Amino acid sequence: MRVPRYSVWGITGIPEIDAGDDLVALIADAVAAQAVDDASAAIEDGDILVVTSKIVSKAEGCQFSAADRDKAIAAETVRVVAERVHPGGVTQIVETRHGLIMAAAGIDTSNVPDGIALRLPDDPDASARRLCTGLRERFGVRLGIVITDTFGRPWRVGQTDVAIGAAGVIVTDDMRGGVDANGRPLQVTITVLADELAGAADLVKGKASGIPVAVVRGLGRLVAGPDAPGARTLVRSVDDDMFRFGSAEAYRLGYDAALAEMRDGGQTPSPRVKQKQD
Amino acid sequence: MRVPRYSVWGITGIPEIDAGDDLVALIADAVAAQAVDDASAAIEDGDILVVTSKIVSKAEGCQFSAADRDKAIAAETVRVVAERVHPGGVTQIVETRHGLIMAAAGIDTSNVPDGIALRLPDDPDASARRLCTGLRERFGVRLGIVITDTFGRPWRVGQTDVAIGAAGVIVTDDMRGGVDANGRPLQVTITVLADELAGAADLVKGKASGIPVAVVRGLGRLVAGPDAPGARTLVRSVDDDMFRFGSAEAYRLGYDAALAEMRDGGQTPSPRVKQKQD
Repeated sequence: MRVPRYSVWGITGIPEIDAGDDLVALIADAVAAQAVDDASAAIEDGDILVVTSKIVSKAEGCQFSAADRDKAIAAETVRVVAERVHPGGVTQIVETRHGLIMAAAGIDTSNVPDGIALRLPDDPDASARRLCTGLRERFGVRLGIVITDTFGRPWRVGQTDVAIGAAGVIVTDDMRGGVDANGRPLQVTITVLADELAGAADLVKGKASGIPVAVVRGLGRLVAGPDAPGARTLVRSVDDDMFRFGSAEAYRLGYDAALAEMRDGGQTPSPRVKQKQD
Repeated sequence: MRVPRYSVWGITGIPEIDAGDDLVALIADAVAAQAVDDASAAIEDGDILVVTSKIVSKAEGCQFSAADRDKAIAAETVRVVAERVHPGGVTQIVETRHGLIMAAAGIDTSNVPDGIALRLPDDPDASARRLCTGLRERFGVRLGIVITDTFGRPWRVGQTDVAIGAAGVIVTDDMRGGVDANGRPLQVTITVLADELAGAADLVKGKASGIPVAVVRGLGRLVAGPDAPGARTLVRSVDDDMFRFGSAEAYRLGYDAALAEMRDGGQTPSPRVKQKQD
């Protein structure tokens, strides 16, 4: 049996990125410099480059004054999912215009210059396609791109990196209808490869290391055409979302609905959460 | 700058596991057989072995008759978090006695013989400690163990592997109070390394491949003493949990609370979700 194997390493030497920088050229140059010391670091057919969204945002000019942080969060937000007041302030979990559900709409003030904040790229899948096309051209190989950001999650502490943009990569392994090693139907149906790649890359990128891009080599079977479905397809549809609101928010909606119905004449309505309420 | 790098490969040749099998011996023998063909596959100091919970369950005798599936789910469940009726049946998201929130309490019927179902190990951190101690002794090196299972998640499609047990591994990189490359406070605070390791390993293990163990080499800085905090510490506390119930369930609780209070005399109570209600 062939042993499945892959490796992951960080691309060092990518400079601080400014608005308007040519990210394809800067990544390619850093790879080339690294390959001078280590020929195996040259990009090969089937490599996947996992890119921290922060440098994409910087190159695309998503900087703004940190003083406008609250206004920017509001502009990025299509819906407040949950909110909690702490001694230190308010935590707001929101749905962004990208369909992502995250704290502070992805607005970030770490790893940016003083007084500056950064929002997510406008269309991370489009950003990934541009990087994919540009780097494929530059290196003359088939490669894939995953753009990542760091997300908290319900029920488990802390954060992990997940995919917010992708191009030239198979983002899910859809095994619906598949069978296991014993020929029995698989219960697990859709493995989200792009999120597992994002986490795998974070193990070398880290948050304080200044390494914004990692190369994954050995999973060329996951490299696809540049127009394969992107990370937008990883957002769960409203109808499938059992956790559309925080518990406190949904409770409040139910409570208020009962009061309103009582006031309106005591009919007995269907006590169901309005899944599509915005 | 040193290039951070690691590699991941699957251990092939682990046989079908039965109740009472010595998992330490079976994993060690499979590693030894693999190292005959490829000396670099011998376990080294700092390696992390990522083990699918299914083989741990099998070795620990967690099999039961698939006919008792519903009874077993009830026995594993301490709390129903959310429930939805589909044309094909009922999806129940529950909190298990391990504190894990997942579909069907982790009861699985894939990759097991016909008529058999499997529950999660009783104490996955204890299972990880036994594997860690046994394999450290067998190989004479410091190694880490992560035990994984496959979880769906709110808001995003599909599933990824996460850590349900760990021993000898630093499960989180806690950067609260840390600074970024510019010396500014980090907003991202706790990277959950164990979950990123679980996902990284799944990329070679997969679901249909029959490879239940992967080796991660190159992240020896994450290997710790065998009594380092386990994966149980990754479960979010009730007080921090903004998504303790499904939206429909919380809405219903609020709705019913308002009705009950109205019946009890029209006081104006505080319309807050009972976070600790079971």
